[in-house]
Amino acid sequence: MIDTIIEPRFSETDALGHIGNTVMPVWFEHARSIIFKKLHPSLDIEGWPLIIAHIDVDFIRQAYIGSDVTVKIGISKLGDKSFTVYHEAWQREQKIATGNAVHVFFDFATNSTVAMPEDAREKLKPLLIDDVNQDKN
Amino acid sequence: MIDTIIEPRFSETDALGHIGNTVMPVWFEHARSIIFKKLHPSLDIEGWPLIIAHIDVDFIRQAYIGSDVTVKIGISKLGDKSFTVYHEAWQREQKIATGNAVHVFFDFATNSTVAMPEDAREKLKPLLIDDVNQDKN
Amino acid sequence: MIDTIIEPRFSETDALGHIGNTVMPVWFEHARSIIFKKLHPSLDIEGWPLIIAHIDVDFIRQAYIGSDVTVKIGISKLGDKSFTVYHEAWQREQKIATGNAVHVFFDFATNSTVAMPEDAREKLKPLLIDDVNQDKN
Amino acid sequence: MIDTIIEPRFSETDALGHIGNTVMPVWFEHARSIIFKKLHPSLDIEGWPLIIAHIDVDFIRQAYIGSDVTVKIGISKLGDKSFTVYHEAWQREQKIATGNAVHVFFDFATNSTVAMPEDAREKLKPLLIDDVNQDKN
Repeated sequence: MIDTIIEPRFSETDALGHIGNTVMPVWFEHARSIIFKKLHPSLDIEGWPLIIAHIDVDFIRQAYIGSDVTVKIGISKLGDKSFTVYHEAWQREQKIATGNAVHVFFDFATNSTVAMPEDAREKLKPLLIDDVNQDKN
Repeated sequence: MIDTIIEPRFSETDALGHIGNTVMPVWFEHARSIIFKKLHPSLDIEGWPLIIAHIDVDFIRQAYIGSDVTVKIGISKLGDKSFTVYHEAWQREQKIATGNAVHVFFDFATNSTVAMPEDAREKLKPLLIDDVNQDKN
Repeated sequence: MIDTIIEPRFSETDALGHIGNTVMPVWFEHARSIIFKKLHPSLDIEGWPLIIAHIDVDFIRQAYIGSDVTVKIGISKLGDKSFTVYHEAWQREQKIATGNAVHVFFDFATNSTVAMPEDAREKLKPLLIDDVNQDKN
Repeated sequence: MIDTIIEPRFSETDALGHIGNTVMPVWFEHARSIIFKKLHPSLDIEGWPLIIAHIDVDFIRQAYIGSDVTVKIGISKLGDKSFTVYHEAWQREQKIATGNAVHVFFDFATNSTVAMPEDAREKLKPLLIDDVNQDKN
């Protein structure tokens, strides 16, 4: 899996004193940047090849400011038109959240989903993870 | 279901010209305020009775600035310690996203989950929805 | 001045239990939507006529969730190429913050500032405020 | 000045294709973490010693995703009860924004401003910058 180190921000805390639960999807998306760059290196709006169909997050432990969070990602499924990214967030050697995001290949010009291009599939294959341990402990 | 009207903000758009996908969990949480107020009217940090265990969002259509979004919520499941909120976001008379959030009753003093108090159950019952049409059209 | 009602969101609180200070620029920008719509009714990216040159916020009192915030805006200065928006945020009948934003007319095609178009000046004139009471009480 | 490296996030772009202007105060606050840690190493809510009185940002160039941003901070003024932090944001070797934040020492227990403690002054002194070049090029 590919690691992204995230330094929690004070603006990401909420009144309960820990990181707000709406922040995890932001961190997970940020950790997927490596995938966006592989598929569309310019990161230009022009030709952006993906839409998002689904996200989910399971919260296991609270996250805090004051120590880094590592978000690990890998691809758990490569479909005909879509792929699924699996994420784990770790802080202080504990798994604090897991989640998934489903991206679909999309042609913004015709406003329709398209088959995954073969070169995209080749770029994504090395990120495939065999087995995902999604238990909540 | 209970409606909350949300006016999309310019800061919620992203470089693809529509509302960023990390915004929907923020809107859904905001629509759940009515539930937080029922269960904990002061909204004080002291005695906050819930943690969040899970969120998910299915994205159906893109959201835009320039017209209001209505987020409808209802409770789809009342468990022993937890309850599930079902959300739908509508814009221009089209369903643009659905999703769920699972909240668990929690005692921050003892740092453990607790059974749903009976008075909380009575407050939540009127929000129960019988049947959720989660088709994506 | 033109009022925009804002319902503070749980995700906008921070660990100190009140609304985080990075939220006020978001609310102020949202309150300026009325100006963006006057100058560029489609809100389309194409032809967006403005860039932002400056923002400032003076924080007077803390903001909380649980009661609405009213952001009042007016134009305090109309220049040759730019205009200044003055903002006040009120909650529970107390002024909690004031601030300014300077927008400059800009041609994204040539990447340069341009003179304020006459029709824009006419649309902005009714928002001019004579006198701004910027005292902090 | 002290540098903080920030990797712009996709969720921080806006519909104009660059980083939204409400993001800069978030990055600037994040860059001030080093100061918060010096003054209040636990980062606990209990005993948090500061409130914020003012922020401002001058936008010089647009910020983009795809390359890191460096935020440099230093203290431009040490007052009796307050101090001013000066910030510069740089991307691709160009200064893209500058700004200031005024923090005031505050006792949340008595809800009033207090004199800057001597040990705080000693911790902040090494961050003082002599001369701030606030030209916009």
